[in-house]
Amino acid sequence: MNNQVKSITKKSDDISGWYNDVIEKAQLAEHGPVKGTIIFRPKGYALWEAIQKNLDIRIKDLGAQNAYFPLFIPYSYLQKEKAHVKGFSPELAVVTHGGGEKLKEPVVVRPTSETIMYEAYSRWIQSFRDLPLIINQWNNVVRWEKRPYYFLRTTEFLWQEGHSAHESNEDAQKMVENALKMYVDFYQSVLGIYGYAGKKSESEKFAGADSTLTYEMLMPDGKIVQGCTSHNLGQNFAKAFKVQYQDNKGQQQFVSQTSWGLSTRSIGALILTHGDDNGLVLPPQIAPTQVVIIPIVTKSSDHVSINRLARQAFEILEGNNIRVKLDDSDQSIGWKFNQYDLEGVPIRIEIGGREAQNQEVSIKLRSDKGRVITSILENVAEDVQNLLHEIQVIMFEKSKKFTLENTRQADNYDQFKEIMETSRGFIEAFWCEDPNCEAKIKEETKATTRCLPVNSIEANGECIYCKKSAKFRWLFGQSY
Amino acid sequence: MNNQVKSITKKSDDISGWYNDVIEKAQLAEHGPVKGTIIFRPKGYALWEAIQKNLDIRIKDLGAQNAYFPLFIPYSYLQKEKAHVKGFSPELAVVTHGGGEKLKEPVVVRPTSETIMYEAYSRWIQSFRDLPLIINQWNNVVRWEKRPYYFLRTTEFLWQEGHSAHESNEDAQKMVENALKMYVDFYQSVLGIYGYAGKKSESEKFAGADSTLTYEMLMPDGKIVQGCTSHNLGQNFAKAFKVQYQDNKGQQQFVSQTSWGLSTRSIGALILTHGDDNGLVLPPQIAPTQVVIIPIVTKSSDHVSINRLARQAFEILEGNNIRVKLDDSDQSIGWKFNQYDLEGVPIRIEIGGREAQNQEVSIKLRSDKGRVITSILENVAEDVQNLLHEIQVIMFEKSKKFTLENTRQADNYDQFKEIMETSRGFIEAFWCEDPNCEAKIKEETKATTRCLPVNSIEANGECIYCKKSAKFRWLFGQSY
Repeated sequence: MNNQVKSITKKSDDISGWYNDVIEKAQLAEHGPVKGTIIFRPKGYALWEAIQKNLDIRIKDLGAQNAYFPLFIPYSYLQKEKAHVKGFSPELAVVTHGGGEKLKEPVVVRPTSETIMYEAYSRWIQSFRDLPLIINQWNNVVRWEKRPYYFLRTTEFLWQEGHSAHESNEDAQKMVENALKMYVDFYQSVLGIYGYAGKKSESEKFAGADSTLTYEMLMPDGKIVQGCTSHNLGQNFAKAFKVQYQDNKGQQQFVSQTSWGLSTRSIGALILTHGDDNGLVLPPQIAPTQVVIIPIVTKSSDHVSINRLARQAFEILEGNNIRVKLDDSDQSIGWKFNQYDLEGVPIRIEIGGREAQNQEVSIKLRSDKGRVITSILENVAEDVQNLLHEIQVIMFEKSKKFTLENTRQADNYDQFKEIMETSRGFIEAFWCEDPNCEAKIKEETKATTRCLPVNSIEANGECIYCKKSAKFRWLFGQSY
Repeated sequence: MNNQVKSITKKSDDISGWYNDVIEKAQLAEHGPVKGTIIFRPKGYALWEAIQKNLDIRIKDLGAQNAYFPLFIPYSYLQKEKAHVKGFSPELAVVTHGGGEKLKEPVVVRPTSETIMYEAYSRWIQSFRDLPLIINQWNNVVRWEKRPYYFLRTTEFLWQEGHSAHESNEDAQKMVENALKMYVDFYQSVLGIYGYAGKKSESEKFAGADSTLTYEMLMPDGKIVQGCTSHNLGQNFAKAFKVQYQDNKGQQQFVSQTSWGLSTRSIGALILTHGDDNGLVLPPQIAPTQVVIIPIVTKSSDHVSINRLARQAFEILEGNNIRVKLDDSDQSIGWKFNQYDLEGVPIRIEIGGREAQNQEVSIKLRSDKGRVITSILENVAEDVQNLLHEIQVIMFEKSKKFTLENTRQADNYDQFKEIMETSRGFIEAFWCEDPNCEAKIKEETKATTRCLPVNSIEANGECIYCKKSAKFRWLFGQSY
């Protein structure tokens, strides 16, 4: 498995070449045989396991219970909600044969589970006492992808989808906002990625929703990744699937519903945001290995005391719940340095003859190559804890600074076009909210509305495209 | 969600009626709209989460890393191993359309992942240094099911599948034995189910394997559930997919491979083995809730001191890592007793006026209705821990006793047939290992060979069917 032969494309030269190289050389993923599918190799899947572990707790804190609904959905279910079937039909995978026979009704592989879940909700929900009902699934979904790209656009992807039903639209709106808050906090405090939370336009919202909230994150090449979505479905599906409850006055009412999800595309954003020419750079919170200890043993060095100190440091860190690995294998020191840089391990601890003599360790940071911290053994846990915390903060601040520096106001369309042709990034621009202007802007600049940021202030503006009256500056950008 | 209206069929009257009732009333699962699929409701999925949590640690202890391979496999991949494609073809779900177009090559929804994984292994494995390679997946698989039955036979099921590659067949054989040992220990010490570990016959082994190990468990109706399988694949797939390595002498060699899995059918065995007329009975090790505390409050009782004591007991137990729930909702006491019995919570703690006065609690066991244990508050954690341990042991011993009592030797075919027509269970009988005899026995008695138990002793017997020479007593039984 010698993957070190070919070096990585420079990130600054060609970001998509770099992205593919890093993913393949760090053994995160590979293309699957069916177009658009990917193999999550152990090092890539470990990132998803870390995301799941962290997010699952947060999802349960929202009051959700995990469940699992079938992969196969009758096509007739999708047809029940008009906007939904229209939105998803072009992306469906269809099973026509099962058990050696042609099926009477073709079934689709779930692109999302609203329809199959809400048919069940219509049976499970009878009274206001059954509300709210909040269920989450961790599963795989399929949306046929014509332009696949590792993690960011794949035919099959892994995600969680939360689905709730409430008595009132106010409750549903509170739910979508809480779900969005959860995602924003997860991205910022765990994955270390700054972004904008806001509302999607009518043409960009989920097929079947009244409104969609999103978290939009700027990548180093000036393009934007949608990090998650949280939909207020209103009563659209409730009416299609007759999801009704008896209120406390004995009246039949339709429930108000929400759905919200975060997928393995988050891994793509994580790689793009933080990686460098040497490979991945992982924020400590999500890194499967936070610290690697490498004994620096040469022919003349005191093997016994070096290895003893390395083992001691390992045990101290592990005892303090730090995800630490001791690599005393017979690979060369150079290979190890490159390998753990490639894998993005936040902290490397080097222990050689001098360190053994002084009973101290040398700490180096993946995210700041210039720094070396010396720590005596009795302080190593505390020092490492502090450094992990510090790295986490600095990585987020760097992402924030980059995003803010690349968020520009455009006051006329020429300016808008010039920005999109050069640096890209986010553009704040007045838009009249007419989908025709939005479509024209997309056609001419590839930029789409990303969102109307939360807490946007109403003003008297004019649409960047048609110059008609516009109330808000929307965020525009080129999407991945 | 009032599901208490209809009572449960008695287990002794009609075990499959009882099984369906318990699953639906305890809200573990429901049938999905596509035949043979099931919805894992939160209480059913919680069992799978508990199984995953426990087993995942054991799998990683075997040296496996988790990964995720695509759901879709080109049909041509399956065709590369002749026995494999023959075995799985009748059960496949086939996707013929994707993204609005007819696919050039139909793809199958994975029934198991040998072929797609080993195509990748052939690229990943180059040298003996890359071995052993041990990868596990938690995923969903599809095998079209014509006679679906909750958990035990479903078109889509959830499972883990481990796949390893080794230098030698000895290493592969060690791996399949270790995987089997892991499953046996899991079933016995966690799910509390006794059974027989052994080798499958040639006709019952996995399609594509050299040999298959299994754990076979007797259910109360005398029928048998196969709890897991562990396959020695020899070099069959290695040759089909050219999975080769350079050995330490520079020679190209084929790897030896294994695969092993445990699925959501384990939940079916769990329910059938331990449940009773009041619902589920869960072994403490796997119960999502191990203890429920119910304050017994009447109009005249001292609410404040009862609720204070209940809260104290809750905090003590929770602080001791016991999965405890305090139900002080306004549902009736009777409803709560029935509900937690139905859900199979191993221990119920009742706290009423007398208990509050004496600062003690009354402990009742789901698995032994006659017993009441009184515990003073300061002993409650230790007493509950001991009882949970005791319940776990007793449940397993009960399963073991039942299995041994229903394992009979048959020395002639009349005896064999009589047992299969009356009590069923396991039959130990000499068999010549000719598949024709096996097929005839199946046709005439519905009993199949379940396994040749490990450590079986060779003897001079004669086949129960053809009376020709036979070396071993095999275990026969009717399979679910």
